[in-house]
Amino acid sequence: MAKILVTNDDGVHSPGLEVLRKHLKKLGDVIVVVPEREMSTASHSLTLRSPLRVSRIKKGIFITSGTPSDCINIGTLGILKEKPVLVVSGINRGPNLGDDITYSGTVAASIESTLRGIPSFAISVASFKNCRFNLAAKFAFILARYILKNGLPSHTFLNVNVPNVSIRSIQGVEITHQGKRIYKENLVKRTDPRGRTYYWLGGDEPTGEIEEGTDFAAVARKKISITPVQLDLTDYKMIDKLRNWHIKFP
Amino acid sequence: MAKILVTNDDGVHSPGLEVLRKHLKKLGDVIVVVPEREMSTASHSLTLRSPLRVSRIKKGIFITSGTPSDCINIGTLGILKEKPVLVVSGINRGPNLGDDITYSGTVAASIESTLRGIPSFAISVASFKNCRFNLAAKFAFILARYILKNGLPSHTFLNVNVPNVSIRSIQGVEITHQGKRIYKENLVKRTDPRGRTYYWLGGDEPTGEIEEGTDFAAVARKKISITPVQLDLTDYKMIDKLRNWHIKFP
Repeated sequence: MAKILVTNDDGVHSPGLEVLRKHLKKLGDVIVVVPEREMSTASHSLTLRSPLRVSRIKKGIFITSGTPSDCINIGTLGILKEKPVLVVSGINRGPNLGDDITYSGTVAASIESTLRGIPSFAISVASFKNCRFNLAAKFAFILARYILKNGLPSHTFLNVNVPNVSIRSIQGVEITHQGKRIYKENLVKRTDPRGRTYYWLGGDEPTGEIEEGTDFAAVARKKISITPVQLDLTDYKMIDKLRNWHIKFP
Repeated sequence: MAKILVTNDDGVHSPGLEVLRKHLKKLGDVIVVVPEREMSTASHSLTLRSPLRVSRIKKGIFITSGTPSDCINIGTLGILKEKPVLVVSGINRGPNLGDDITYSGTVAASIESTLRGIPSFAISVASFKNCRFNLAAKFAFILARYILKNGLPSHTFLNVNVPNVSIRSIQGVEITHQGKRIYKENLVKRTDPRGRTYYWLGGDEPTGEIEEGTDFAAVARKKISITPVQLDLTDYKMIDKLRNWHIKFP
């Protein structure tokens, strides 16, 4: 039976994990490799300076001391004997929209899978509270079936955000492009009991420009947003402009 | 005097830091905000679940308990009273080429700066041994001058890799696009003295397709590679194809 690898960045205790596993089991042999604790905003970090531990806690469920990207490497190189046909990362608690996807461990696991030549999607519920993971898991099953049938380009994966509404309120699916984050100034300065200063980075829910066609706009309209994401970050339009700078060195 | 913010991911003790600071001082008031220890492959991670400490160790030099991206936020929101005119991230020990730039804390600091609306470049010496930081710092000075004069588009920064050769051997500057990494299977399995398995992710130097026009090719030909990098990861070509999947839900 085809192997499907599942990971996340919220860790093994995330309620989004078990419901995702259940729905994907209809499509293949689901192997879960996830961080043992929450790794949100781990981004695409890799653990290179300390060894990685792996424990099998149930049949088909492994926890690791590493990041979501580490989980992909452990899953594909250490646990699975064959290449999985699909990697699903999620279901994330909270949106992964616009510029913020560069911080996301959930999205990073899909980047790592794509680098390893495995089709992948990342899926998030666009709320931090009372997440309707069941609805997102149902959609994950549908989307996984489409990907297994149609394939994905070799350097592209999908980033999915599901609005946190009831199945009756969902206004369908929209293919979107990545929106721009509206950045808030959010550094909180405090003083500890010994009089020393420390800082907290703010954790506000992200907001973005509700521009037509973006992931932000789709979710705001109660649509499931699917953004195709590619790994080449080159700004091709800038190449000619930079050549015209005629930088001489030495 | 215009403020220039400098950070890195190799930490305060990196030999690339001091030489960079020296050269940039000719252009403005250089403020250094760097991690107190090495943060390579931190990628674009942010510290949201623990407070951040900041210490001023010398005039204009601050160390933090955070990642390179945290350093940008602490620098721009906590330390500097005015917006810097430029953020320079580096000089990194080791290349940041091709697909690998998604792992890099050095590059992530430039992403964070760009999100904050500050022009930025990341600069790396393409070797892990006997790095010629002085040459790279000289080039950083030249490039900084060009950026201060010409500006950069609001969602674009530059990723610079300097080959580790003598100034006489440098073959000039090339504007490049991001190459593709050739991925090696590099997970090492070991057993600890108590009989438990652990893993190391391999740390091989990256290699890439030496395809004409890429960052890999430029550095291999002893040229300084400058890649313009943008933050929109959308695969626009894939949008129409995905629409033709006609995904129905619910």
